[in-house]
Amino acid sequence: MQKEFVVISAHVGDFVWRCGGAIALHVAAGYKATIVCLSYGERGESARLYEEPGMTAEKARARRRAEAEAAADVLGATIVFLDGSDYMLRVNDEMLHKTAAVLRETQPEFILTHPAADPSNLDHVTTFNFALEARMVAQAHGHPGGAVIGAPQVYSFEPHQSELCLFKPDTLLDITSVWEVKRKAMECLAGQKALWDYYERVGLQRGAVSRRRQKGKATGPIYGEAFQSVFPARVDLL
Amino acid sequence: MQKEFVVISAHVGDFVWRCGGAIALHVAAGYKATIVCLSYGERGESARLYEEPGMTAEKARARRRAEAEAAADVLGATIVFLDGSDYMLRVNDEMLHKTAAVLRETQPEFILTHPAADPSNLDHVTTFNFALEARMVAQAHGHPGGAVIGAPQVYSFEPHQSELCLFKPDTLLDITSVWEVKRKAMECLAGQKALWDYYERVGLQRGAVSRRRQKGKATGPIYGEAFQSVFPARVDLL
Amino acid sequence: MQKEFVVISAHVGDFVWRCGGAIALHVAAGYKATIVCLSYGERGESARLYEEPGMTAEKARARRRAEAEAAADVLGATIVFLDGSDYMLRVNDEMLHKTAAVLRETQPEFILTHPAADPSNLDHVTTFNFALEARMVAQAHGHPGGAVIGAPQVYSFEPHQSELCLFKPDTLLDITSVWEVKRKAMECLAGQKALWDYYERVGLQRGAVSRRRQKGKATGPIYGEAFQSVFPARVDLL
Amino acid sequence: MQKEFVVISAHVGDFVWRCGGAIALHVAAGYKATIVCLSYGERGESARLYEEPGMTAEKARARRRAEAEAAADVLGATIVFLDGSDYMLRVNDEMLHKTAAVLRETQPEFILTHPAADPSNLDHVTTFNFALEARMVAQAHGHPGGAVIGAPQVYSFEPHQSELCLFKPDTLLDITSVWEVKRKAMECLAGQKALWDYYERVGLQRGAVSRRRQKGKATGPIYGEAFQSVFPARVDLL
Amino acid sequence: MQKEFVVISAHVGDFVWRCGGAIALHVAAGYKATIVCLSYGERGESARLYEEPGMTAEKARARRRAEAEAAADVLGATIVFLDGSDYMLRVNDEMLHKTAAVLRETQPEFILTHPAADPSNLDHVTTFNFALEARMVAQAHGHPGGAVIGAPQVYSFEPHQSELCLFKPDTLLDITSVWEVKRKAMECLAGQKALWDYYERVGLQRGAVSRRRQKGKATGPIYGEAFQSVFPARVDLL
Amino acid sequence: MQKEFVVISAHVGDFVWRCGGAIALHVAAGYKATIVCLSYGERGESARLYEEPGMTAEKARARRRAEAEAAADVLGATIVFLDGSDYMLRVNDEMLHKTAAVLRETQPEFILTHPAADPSNLDHVTTFNFALEARMVAQAHGHPGGAVIGAPQVYSFEPHQSELCLFKPDTLLDITSVWEVKRKAMECLAGQKALWDYYERVGLQRGAVSRRRQKGKATGPIYGEAFQSVFPARVDLL
Repeated sequence: MQKEFVVISAHVGDFVWRCGGAIALHVAAGYKATIVCLSYGERGESARLYEEPGMTAEKARARRRAEAEAAADVLGATIVFLDGSDYMLRVNDEMLHKTAAVLRETQPEFILTHPAADPSNLDHVTTFNFALEARMVAQAHGHPGGAVIGAPQVYSFEPHQSELCLFKPDTLLDITSVWEVKRKAMECLAGQKALWDYYERVGLQRGAVSRRRQKGKATGPIYGEAFQSVFPARVDLL
Repeated sequence: MQKEFVVISAHVGDFVWRCGGAIALHVAAGYKATIVCLSYGERGESARLYEEPGMTAEKARARRRAEAEAAADVLGATIVFLDGSDYMLRVNDEMLHKTAAVLRETQPEFILTHPAADPSNLDHVTTFNFALEARMVAQAHGHPGGAVIGAPQVYSFEPHQSELCLFKPDTLLDITSVWEVKRKAMECLAGQKALWDYYERVGLQRGAVSRRRQKGKATGPIYGEAFQSVFPARVDLL
Repeated sequence: MQKEFVVISAHVGDFVWRCGGAIALHVAAGYKATIVCLSYGERGESARLYEEPGMTAEKARARRRAEAEAAADVLGATIVFLDGSDYMLRVNDEMLHKTAAVLRETQPEFILTHPAADPSNLDHVTTFNFALEARMVAQAHGHPGGAVIGAPQVYSFEPHQSELCLFKPDTLLDITSVWEVKRKAMECLAGQKALWDYYERVGLQRGAVSRRRQKGKATGPIYGEAFQSVFPARVDLL
Repeated sequence: MQKEFVVISAHVGDFVWRCGGAIALHVAAGYKATIVCLSYGERGESARLYEEPGMTAEKARARRRAEAEAAADVLGATIVFLDGSDYMLRVNDEMLHKTAAVLRETQPEFILTHPAADPSNLDHVTTFNFALEARMVAQAHGHPGGAVIGAPQVYSFEPHQSELCLFKPDTLLDITSVWEVKRKAMECLAGQKALWDYYERVGLQRGAVSRRRQKGKATGPIYGEAFQSVFPARVDLL
Repeated sequence: MQKEFVVISAHVGDFVWRCGGAIALHVAAGYKATIVCLSYGERGESARLYEEPGMTAEKARARRRAEAEAAADVLGATIVFLDGSDYMLRVNDEMLHKTAAVLRETQPEFILTHPAADPSNLDHVTTFNFALEARMVAQAHGHPGGAVIGAPQVYSFEPHQSELCLFKPDTLLDITSVWEVKRKAMECLAGQKALWDYYERVGLQRGAVSRRRQKGKATGPIYGEAFQSVFPARVDLL
Repeated sequence: MQKEFVVISAHVGDFVWRCGGAIALHVAAGYKATIVCLSYGERGESARLYEEPGMTAEKARARRRAEAEAAADVLGATIVFLDGSDYMLRVNDEMLHKTAAVLRETQPEFILTHPAADPSNLDHVTTFNFALEARMVAQAHGHPGGAVIGAPQVYSFEPHQSELCLFKPDTLLDITSVWEVKRKAMECLAGQKALWDYYERVGLQRGAVSRRRQKGKATGPIYGEAFQSVFPARVDLL
């Protein structure tokens, strides 16, 4: 049976900058990826769009949605939009049960989402809590829908300023083999061009650090992504 | 080439109570285990021995050493004694270079040792720092001895009171298949009989918790051991 | 005047597993105990019930309520149900003012509730915040109802996975004398039979640890419960 | 252009006790100060008023509002009331957008508000989160209103019990030159007379501590106020 | 049998400023108090003495010793000097075994010492670790000397800047009844006159805070001292 | 009078990678910079040198010393070598008093050194503690040498892996104007060529983040360095 995983993303850009490599890598390894995107990020992360004359929130939403679809397509993932607004993102029970349904349907191996804290972007904090809530609802009996899920790991992906968000990565993923795919997905986000090089450098730094952790390979990772586990991992060997 | 790992233990009992299952499990999986034991624990953890008339520190050391050798033997591990005293354990450069030499020789996949904090037992804190120092020395050029090592993961094993030691496990190991071996090794420690059942219950609790994390297996772990990684892990898939 | 205390519990089982000993012990010492139970736990903690054919959320609620009443009865406590749903528990102002009224009426010596954090069960986090809110409302002038309360201590009781919840106990209670009562109360929870032995072991571990802290008694505690104070304690002697 | 700053305060007293010196000092230095006051504190912090016969919440609100206006006047600040209730303070989107509008209008150099944690007063926690939300909304394109703001520093001011609130000050402000103004503003709060001396002593302690940090001045600060930065500061020299 | 307790103090002043009230209070309640003073504080805390012409470290030591003896006398405590130097305080095994002997002899109910962290005064950190080491040595079999001790609580007393030292008090002691004694002991420290009022205000603030925690007493504490427990407490009732 | 500051660096490279920009910037602003370098880093950070045939620790020391002198020269700083060895760095009282003498002589505005924690490099931790000790000794009366110092701020500079070292920057310094100087100083470190680009990217990331914090400038920082304050800052305005 095909393994699956789910990404829960506050805004359009987040699933690209922060875990686009993980998505592409696992898709390449045969996993099915589903992205749940809570908002279009049409306010907080589209400053560039508003430089165009006549830009409105509605137009910005459409533009960001198209960008997100293109990026998801490049990464090989299915994307589900929950149609929320950003800055401030407000979630509701309908969005929650829709996400829980995605989790029940996909029975994911793991969930990727934002870290628990971010004083500069509370939409991210809302999304982290929303992801944990959706996981709980999907675990509980007595709700309508498919089979309950087990206890999949939740990984927080890297925020914009890791130390401000108390992000302490425990898992470094080698994304060298899919770097070109991630770069291409980033380039779908025309509204945030200023971040392309920023996140290329993030990838290089995480690659350089994980290269130091690798034993006896001729060549180590060049690009990496960093994650923090919310729950302990159950393993068969250390 | 056979994979190896190293355990750095403050006292005789520690490597049994805290990671006896991990040792037996990896030995069963074909790894070679080397235990570096810094002291005999003849003072702090041998209260029972002192109930015998005529007991001295010297006799207690000999008795504990024999127990440790028996336990290591049951677990299938090689044990190296550094002959320190406990309560208070004082380390020195000779002990450090001896341990670094073990690391260079074995080129371990990982190192197991105590957690960073323990206000009720500073010997454990000394050992944690000592283990990190030995790892640094073994990584450095310019010391005599074999090839430098890479950057093996260091796992802290579970202390007596986890919350007092700020121990936050991120890795739960299923040791069900080797439980009988661990129990037998514990029973080698005649001087600490009161702890046998205590650590059997620890094993059951860690097993119960990790059972909840397991997807779609008919029967989950019954016994477990808990570990906390000091460094981020480099992985190829999440 | 009879001393009183209040327990604020997310689900039916929580007040039994986590502080059933504290309840029985203080009742035996002459305190009056009131449990405020926010939900019936009919979804998240009743997996076993759903194995019965024809089980519905409504039936599960009734069953869990009966179990809770039986357990409270065994412990000698009064129980008040706030009729919330679980997984996700949502609280409202009516529930808040009802709870504040209980606090004003009972003028409790202390309040027992969940810890502040639990990524695997946000209902517990909701309840912790709800308990602090109810305490604030009960302290404030200008609300209808009885005399305002002082500043009673709030103790967090032990969660399922203490380290995951950042639970750091500062208070170990000897519940040996009422262990049989707690066990009998646990056995009222037929829907969660798998947890009886788990929590018996928790009791034994906390007993063993607190035994080490006891000076000059012939026999120490066998069973214990662990708590973490939210506020500093005011004392007359150390 | 005149520099401005904004204070976001849960209750009437907070902006006086906790940053009255900072307000007076910056007003004296030519800044324009705007206080956004979320509630009148008519319940939680007006115990003394309720000793008067016939006191009601409505009367208490009016009384506290008058006190707040008098105190703001003494400090030289403009005050905006959002008309919330306290104990429990509930915020809404209207309050949020009103505050964001104040931020856009004033383009503040910095924002002063409560710390992130306070288990004894969740109104303060609500206000901290509200302040971060208002800052986000004011930063975002696509909302109606004036020009978006940059990324002004947010300083948490000192809570009643610093350690309980995990308050770790990184900035000590010398308010000696405006102490008499702050004292006079405190004395406007007739309903909380018991706190005047308490906060005079807080001022003296913070002054004494910052005196130790001062190089080569003949006379150091006598009165101080303490703040904790939420974000890193951008500086041109250390 | 008379109950005893031990104070382990880095410098002469520390046992007065930080726990002089606790000492006097317990002595008044019939406890026997023993102070172990590691150094005379002749360098770091005697700036005032060096304003006298011809002052030397030797003279400063003698002067501070006499002050300490006078203060201990006022508090009703026995004082033992270990003759260390301060700034930097260096401890050794002789000092350690001397202190362990005091612990074995007195079999203390509790130990008072510095907190674990203080970046502005590492002598305090050295003393905290030294106190935990002495407790371990006194608990261990196989050392010469009297009966081993149990597991007495260790309380950290309040440092000069609580937040800088990560000091989070969990215990507030009412020292109102012995305030005059503490003040008189403080006044024995002629070399640090500048601190008398500072620590009087600390006493008033801690008194004010603990007054809020007290139920149904006509008059609450006026002066207090704050402590942080290192280990969990074993209790018979909450 | 010329302002001065002091850098305390474990190894040769540290003062270049981590605060070379701060040094060059303050020198350009008229400060005098003195670097105290505890070791030559001839073991832990000179892997590349050992690829040359016939390399010895002694030769490596000489080579690294020359590189450090060249780098200090480029940055405009005076450098003092304490001649320690690295991996493991051991400090002693002679080194301590030498450093305290530098502090007394220079009366620095601030001190730059490593962060408090680094499990992968305990030499850095040793240096952090050493710097705090030297500051204490320089503050104390009764030692031989010049006038005691005040309480200069200590800034921790950025370690190799910030999250692993619990590094939480609170101060972002714009080093754009001196970037070429820092790059040139980095290039003096021929033995660590692999790090040049790594630290160029660090500079770009810190620049990008601080650019977001800047109000109303046409062009923001391009390169930055990040620092964490050990002590609160005393300020005249926020």
